[in-house]
Amino acid sequence: MKGVLNSFEQGFIRLNLLFLKRYEQNIGDNMSTKLFDKAMERDFEHFFAEDDLSRNHSYIQSLPMDKVDCSLKIKDDLVLAGLPYFFGAFNYLGANLQIEEHLSFEGKKFKKEDQSMLSFELPFALALTGERIALNLLQRASSIATFTNKFSELAKETNTKILDTRKTTPGLRGLEKYAVRIGGGFNHRLGQSDMWMVKDNHKSFFGGVKPAVEYFQSMNGFYTPIEVEIHDLVELEDCFGLGVKHFMLDNFSPDDIKKAIAMKPAGVTFEVSGGIRLNTIEKYLIPGVDAISIGSMTYDAPAVDLSLKYKRS
Amino acid sequence: MKGVLNSFEQGFIRLNLLFLKRYEQNIGDNMSTKLFDKAMERDFEHFFAEDDLSRNHSYIQSLPMDKVDCSLKIKDDLVLAGLPYFFGAFNYLGANLQIEEHLSFEGKKFKKEDQSMLSFELPFALALTGERIALNLLQRASSIATFTNKFSELAKETNTKILDTRKTTPGLRGLEKYAVRIGGGFNHRLGQSDMWMVKDNHKSFFGGVKPAVEYFQSMNGFYTPIEVEIHDLVELEDCFGLGVKHFMLDNFSPDDIKKAIAMKPAGVTFEVSGGIRLNTIEKYLIPGVDAISIGSMTYDAPAVDLSLKYKRS
Amino acid sequence: MKGVLNSFEQGFIRLNLLFLKRYEQNIGDNMSTKLFDKAMERDFEHFFAEDDLSRNHSYIQSLPMDKVDCSLKIKDDLVLAGLPYFFGAFNYLGANLQIEEHLSFEGKKFKKEDQSMLSFELPFALALTGERIALNLLQRASSIATFTNKFSELAKETNTKILDTRKTTPGLRGLEKYAVRIGGGFNHRLGQSDMWMVKDNHKSFFGGVKPAVEYFQSMNGFYTPIEVEIHDLVELEDCFGLGVKHFMLDNFSPDDIKKAIAMKPAGVTFEVSGGIRLNTIEKYLIPGVDAISIGSMTYDAPAVDLSLKYKRS
Amino acid sequence: MKGVLNSFEQGFIRLNLLFLKRYEQNIGDNMSTKLFDKAMERDFEHFFAEDDLSRNHSYIQSLPMDKVDCSLKIKDDLVLAGLPYFFGAFNYLGANLQIEEHLSFEGKKFKKEDQSMLSFELPFALALTGERIALNLLQRASSIATFTNKFSELAKETNTKILDTRKTTPGLRGLEKYAVRIGGGFNHRLGQSDMWMVKDNHKSFFGGVKPAVEYFQSMNGFYTPIEVEIHDLVELEDCFGLGVKHFMLDNFSPDDIKKAIAMKPAGVTFEVSGGIRLNTIEKYLIPGVDAISIGSMTYDAPAVDLSLKYKRS
Amino acid sequence: MKGVLNSFEQGFIRLNLLFLKRYEQNIGDNMSTKLFDKAMERDFEHFFAEDDLSRNHSYIQSLPMDKVDCSLKIKDDLVLAGLPYFFGAFNYLGANLQIEEHLSFEGKKFKKEDQSMLSFELPFALALTGERIALNLLQRASSIATFTNKFSELAKETNTKILDTRKTTPGLRGLEKYAVRIGGGFNHRLGQSDMWMVKDNHKSFFGGVKPAVEYFQSMNGFYTPIEVEIHDLVELEDCFGLGVKHFMLDNFSPDDIKKAIAMKPAGVTFEVSGGIRLNTIEKYLIPGVDAISIGSMTYDAPAVDLSLKYKRS
Amino acid sequence: MKGVLNSFEQGFIRLNLLFLKRYEQNIGDNMSTKLFDKAMERDFEHFFAEDDLSRNHSYIQSLPMDKVDCSLKIKDDLVLAGLPYFFGAFNYLGANLQIEEHLSFEGKKFKKEDQSMLSFELPFALALTGERIALNLLQRASSIATFTNKFSELAKETNTKILDTRKTTPGLRGLEKYAVRIGGGFNHRLGQSDMWMVKDNHKSFFGGVKPAVEYFQSMNGFYTPIEVEIHDLVELEDCFGLGVKHFMLDNFSPDDIKKAIAMKPAGVTFEVSGGIRLNTIEKYLIPGVDAISIGSMTYDAPAVDLSLKYKRS
Repeated sequence: MKGVLNSFEQGFIRLNLLFLKRYEQNIGDNMSTKLFDKAMERDFEHFFAEDDLSRNHSYIQSLPMDKVDCSLKIKDDLVLAGLPYFFGAFNYLGANLQIEEHLSFEGKKFKKEDQSMLSFELPFALALTGERIALNLLQRASSIATFTNKFSELAKETNTKILDTRKTTPGLRGLEKYAVRIGGGFNHRLGQSDMWMVKDNHKSFFGGVKPAVEYFQSMNGFYTPIEVEIHDLVELEDCFGLGVKHFMLDNFSPDDIKKAIAMKPAGVTFEVSGGIRLNTIEKYLIPGVDAISIGSMTYDAPAVDLSLKYKRS
Repeated sequence: MKGVLNSFEQGFIRLNLLFLKRYEQNIGDNMSTKLFDKAMERDFEHFFAEDDLSRNHSYIQSLPMDKVDCSLKIKDDLVLAGLPYFFGAFNYLGANLQIEEHLSFEGKKFKKEDQSMLSFELPFALALTGERIALNLLQRASSIATFTNKFSELAKETNTKILDTRKTTPGLRGLEKYAVRIGGGFNHRLGQSDMWMVKDNHKSFFGGVKPAVEYFQSMNGFYTPIEVEIHDLVELEDCFGLGVKHFMLDNFSPDDIKKAIAMKPAGVTFEVSGGIRLNTIEKYLIPGVDAISIGSMTYDAPAVDLSLKYKRS
Repeated sequence: MKGVLNSFEQGFIRLNLLFLKRYEQNIGDNMSTKLFDKAMERDFEHFFAEDDLSRNHSYIQSLPMDKVDCSLKIKDDLVLAGLPYFFGAFNYLGANLQIEEHLSFEGKKFKKEDQSMLSFELPFALALTGERIALNLLQRASSIATFTNKFSELAKETNTKILDTRKTTPGLRGLEKYAVRIGGGFNHRLGQSDMWMVKDNHKSFFGGVKPAVEYFQSMNGFYTPIEVEIHDLVELEDCFGLGVKHFMLDNFSPDDIKKAIAMKPAGVTFEVSGGIRLNTIEKYLIPGVDAISIGSMTYDAPAVDLSLKYKRS
Repeated sequence: MKGVLNSFEQGFIRLNLLFLKRYEQNIGDNMSTKLFDKAMERDFEHFFAEDDLSRNHSYIQSLPMDKVDCSLKIKDDLVLAGLPYFFGAFNYLGANLQIEEHLSFEGKKFKKEDQSMLSFELPFALALTGERIALNLLQRASSIATFTNKFSELAKETNTKILDTRKTTPGLRGLEKYAVRIGGGFNHRLGQSDMWMVKDNHKSFFGGVKPAVEYFQSMNGFYTPIEVEIHDLVELEDCFGLGVKHFMLDNFSPDDIKKAIAMKPAGVTFEVSGGIRLNTIEKYLIPGVDAISIGSMTYDAPAVDLSLKYKRS
Repeated sequence: MKGVLNSFEQGFIRLNLLFLKRYEQNIGDNMSTKLFDKAMERDFEHFFAEDDLSRNHSYIQSLPMDKVDCSLKIKDDLVLAGLPYFFGAFNYLGANLQIEEHLSFEGKKFKKEDQSMLSFELPFALALTGERIALNLLQRASSIATFTNKFSELAKETNTKILDTRKTTPGLRGLEKYAVRIGGGFNHRLGQSDMWMVKDNHKSFFGGVKPAVEYFQSMNGFYTPIEVEIHDLVELEDCFGLGVKHFMLDNFSPDDIKKAIAMKPAGVTFEVSGGIRLNTIEKYLIPGVDAISIGSMTYDAPAVDLSLKYKRS
Repeated sequence: MKGVLNSFEQGFIRLNLLFLKRYEQNIGDNMSTKLFDKAMERDFEHFFAEDDLSRNHSYIQSLPMDKVDCSLKIKDDLVLAGLPYFFGAFNYLGANLQIEEHLSFEGKKFKKEDQSMLSFELPFALALTGERIALNLLQRASSIATFTNKFSELAKETNTKILDTRKTTPGLRGLEKYAVRIGGGFNHRLGQSDMWMVKDNHKSFFGGVKPAVEYFQSMNGFYTPIEVEIHDLVELEDCFGLGVKHFMLDNFSPDDIKKAIAMKPAGVTFEVSGGIRLNTIEKYLIPGVDAISIGSMTYDAPAVDLSLKYKRS
């Protein structure tokens, strides 16, 4: 896992070390899996409802329980992500798989030709019933982690953070924002009320940026951050007196970004956004840009291919 | 259990053998029980809500947990069915009963005077709390399996399948269709969209059988079967060109059924229906009738009597 | 509706008069339907899940909404019951049917040859989607109301109340206990903790009736009634000193019942139970028997037949 | 625990002895905890949703699982109550704490300066995640038990029961009524339909107490008690012929209460209510008053202070 | 909409005509929207939970309700799909948008430079709160419909149906399979038990294709189709005698497909699958191939770009 | 309402003006009520479950629907808060009350002797069913708003914000934090993951404040604030280099607070906490203290008294 660790942020290394430390000290302790599984319970109920297993009880009842050996097959270059979800799907059905035992695979980079070595044992009934949903989740998380990792590698030089947006798949925001972190990215707000954003629609509705900002300041959320979406340098300058600390420079040219940085006050954050892609990001990696947010990172990550093979133990 | 096995379809024997094989190989393995219990979780939540246990926490908290020996008492001639539901009710409350250990009782025929020999141990609190719902479910399934078995025994000679309908108790369709199978019957569709049925209401609404069939063909469900309800021989003949493979001959006389069979194309299924009862079924058991569907099998099966006795271990 | 009113208890007449008064004064007011529909929301969600409509959105979306005229067809002698559930099923799907407009049909006695005159208008999509579940519920309630009515007619002479039990279909207890009331019966407890019952299992577990009664008295429910199941006259006499007001005489012979009545203290209730059927009830209708409880009233009521016909408006 | 037992009702002592007996016999048996936890599952889901853990899966996943030693710190004079809820909160997250092992602390009286000696071990992740909700619940229950205990101690002399009302915190009625019992009080009805109450609003709406009582008698609930709220002696006398057994004397002066008791028939219950507080209750403790109900006992109990300390095992 | 209709299957035209007919006849009738909204209620609850609006009631309460004019902005060449979901998201929040009024836009082809003309009015609060989720759903459906349409256009010549798989986004299977139909594709099974599939894992587990098929035949689902995944011509020939009607030719070369077609019995379906992409599909479009299934159609459809603009009415 | 507006923060005035503006422009527009009601739906389901209305359908069905005039009776000096919840409870049951029409009462100060003038019309059935829960919620919110207002009035002089904590009633956090805002207070974080707090338990577990801060920095939440709980001046100074912007000075003496302020860097927030009460707060109101957080504000606010009176319209 060394190679992976080198390519991630300092913070993530520490996080993984905490994981590893726990793993070494508490072999056989399966509590954190249970805590995650509890948090995910309603999601899995929802996902399995699509396969309609609750209506066909006798199918479920008659599936053989002989054990099978399962192994994950990697079919693309990728950053593997989503193992808690993958194992969680089987655990929801009654398995007792431990994420800790497979921790070193989460966030690991694989080549298409690699053998994953990730293997575990399951009763046939659970493998058959859980497989499709487990793989669909793992594939989605790995696709996003892989795509995010390409951006975050490029951005390391200027220490610019790569951020996701709320343009996530409805119902999978938690997984997709987790995958972004595994790929070395950072999370923008999880939901509408974690941080107040003043966008074009607010400005036009309230009649300007000032009343829009005041509207959110009147919400009495003492620590809730406020961010304003800015469209040109004049607007930016006008906003510096409103008590706002975070600015999103939307569709700014690299030149205008540089001008903005020249007038940036201390303690203020600049986030750049607007249709930035893998092949255009480099010109936005300007010292002073704190973060770049990229919607397509979650809604248009190219799919990576994975499958599960199993045979009687 | 020999006697029972002899009286069922080949397929069911195989299913039970799979069960038995599993049982022999995996003693102590309780996974399939868990898978079923997971599928049933929301149903049991619903059923126990009627007994209002969630509002009276201290009653539940104060019930003694000393172990009691429980045994099932058979009070009618019957085919026992529904043990997964019966045990599931206690497991929902925290017990850990294993269906595998009692597998040979499911689908078994009992005489009123038989002792069931089905016994198990439970904490007093769980016996008391779960008993009524567990028995209500077991009674309902056994009533239907017993009634179905009478039809399916008669129908074996002509190899006609006995089918249920959607005239099931709201909330218990899964259990009732399972009981039909245990009794030797087969399931018609589980829900409205598993198979498209063109009935009188559709024909009259769409202006004829042809536009009604085309309506369902336009749903783009490649493998979803379509069945047309037919009321006379002329309508039947008209329908042969529409690409439909399954026909329900509704309220046909035995004579008309014979005429229909004379004109039946290859690869086509005939299902007979319409108020058929135990004392009238024999005249409909005509070679060429693939199946007979009987609504009263689920909504009017005579109740069989069962109770649970327990005493301190 | 005259005839029906004559055959029911005084209390029920008053209830219906309240209904009627409301109906006359508030035509066009649909609030009480909404209140009932709100209470039933989770049940209907559960029932419709069996027809799997939530998975097949495009089927639902494509069903034509032209209006159809619906009329209920009565096919057996019966007491009609369950219209709030019947209409509620269609309302759950978005219809706006008003129970008030059809109030005079609820609890009405019909002969097999009667035309029901109960008709209403619905969009085709809602008729098709709701019909099966609406009818299954109406049939179940009417079957129980019809069966209960036979018992309650017989019991009127001695002013003995006919009670149901907790032997109801899991998930339908509310409907079945409502149907009992429409049929002229009375409800025993709804759930385990509405009233504490000391049964054989409790006595044997706690080591006698006295500690069992004390156990429930220690629950600190000031107004919660306690009832003791009694098996012979000696036990009955022993119990009179325990502060219990309600006694269930279980499987007592008519002679023993008479002896019990001879020793009955003031302010005490006697409920008779134990396999009492339509053809045996008369010998238990002894003055001094306050109530007779009959489990089969809900679990073995013979089905009555009903259907829905509709054609384009 | 001796001191506590002496100060409670006979019933409660028996309840605790049952508990203790179970504890002694079934060390290691965790079933009753599970039964309670099952009943509470939906409540805990609701409570933890406020801390939003289901949206932030990776936070949960990354929390270290090393064990910590936890101990409860008592910071006020109090009757400790709510341990099943307190432990239940951690168990909901995957812990396996057993209420039985800490049974002697429930209902125990502590002084501010006491050390609680209540300690247990948890993984750090569960301690951190569950602590706030567990303490909020324990604090609320202990506050109510402590306050109730003050009333019930005063009322012991006249053997008057102290009752709660439905003026409970929405969502916490079960806990608050449980705390009342632990404090030595008794529960009035749990919900609207456990007992029918005829209040001012009913009388005015139905046009008098008689039609209001008849309305509820027409509900056909055989064992459901009915209670009438009475405002003066004339009304009380008028009501004695209606078949009602329970009367709430609302805002009666001590003198009028005495007059009411003078005319009280056998087998009838008098409950006194109306703004009675700790400093005024003594003048209402008149022999013949069966119960006093006090709304503020649940909605205005002064908070007691508790906290949880933990350090690495 | 003419141009669109020409490019779809016959069945889809009929479906749309039914829609249009309804639209013309029932202007102002909003029932079918309500039926869809009801079916989607739990999904929307789930999706909006991610934006955490239920925790921040005062934010919601304080959002201004002035009306804004909304218009959809098309930013890519695409087939628009998912309007029922798009409008459904706003309706879930309390709007009353009618899909019927915008019916002609569903399934319509747009060019990047087109103005969509799709506009409607909403209160500002609902536009702001629903926008992100509504757009995320519309984007996903349109991406899949657009991608599917490319396959289905190519496949029209040989009248081969394009099928999806169960490789869908967990939680969005209904939407994704709907989008496939709008794009001119057909749906394979919705869930595991709509159709029994015998795959490699089953064969290896049960010890061959024959016992695997017999296992599913023993499930007693009379009309449930069975499909066998076939890997070579020998296996195919061996299977013809098992009573199976549907075969999936997995990873067959075009040459082997032709050989298979040469031996295809009457009444049998051939579905071809295995990594088929837009640039390779033409060589598999061989007469006699009934269907081609393509997993990437749902999990790797390139994203199309859409946004919502609004200003005060 | 003038008087009230004068006593609140600038932000709150703006918020109310927005409300009022909406009210004037959109009479008859009930959308924002619906949006709030939607957000609260699951909470109300939970609250009404305690009154058990879903089990007793016929009670609900039989309640008369005649209209009654309702008026709120104020029985204490208070700041009225919680009307959206109060009306929401009745709306959940099917009423259609509009918060907009009563907007000027929310946040208004009343004297015990004032007549509230707040009146509205409801069907008797809804008044009776919803009253208790509606009042319980209104009482709780008003108690907290009233208590908070006392703190926030005192703190206006130094422009110090009064903050709540997570010591809220489980299940009612949203209401209680809303009431704090109505009373002029501000909200600390809503849930555990809105802001990362480093407390004693974290420091001791991770081995110091530095690794604890680094742990949360490794969570990759770009905008998520971090706050450190500080116990003395040395620790405070040590922390200034860690990139943390928010500090909670826990149990600092006024003198130490002054010393801390003397060394406070620009852009940093100081929150003071630790058992501060109404009679001690003034000595902590030191210029430079940005906020004071008070747990007892939500868990120990003295109850204010309110009731609902109604009579036939």
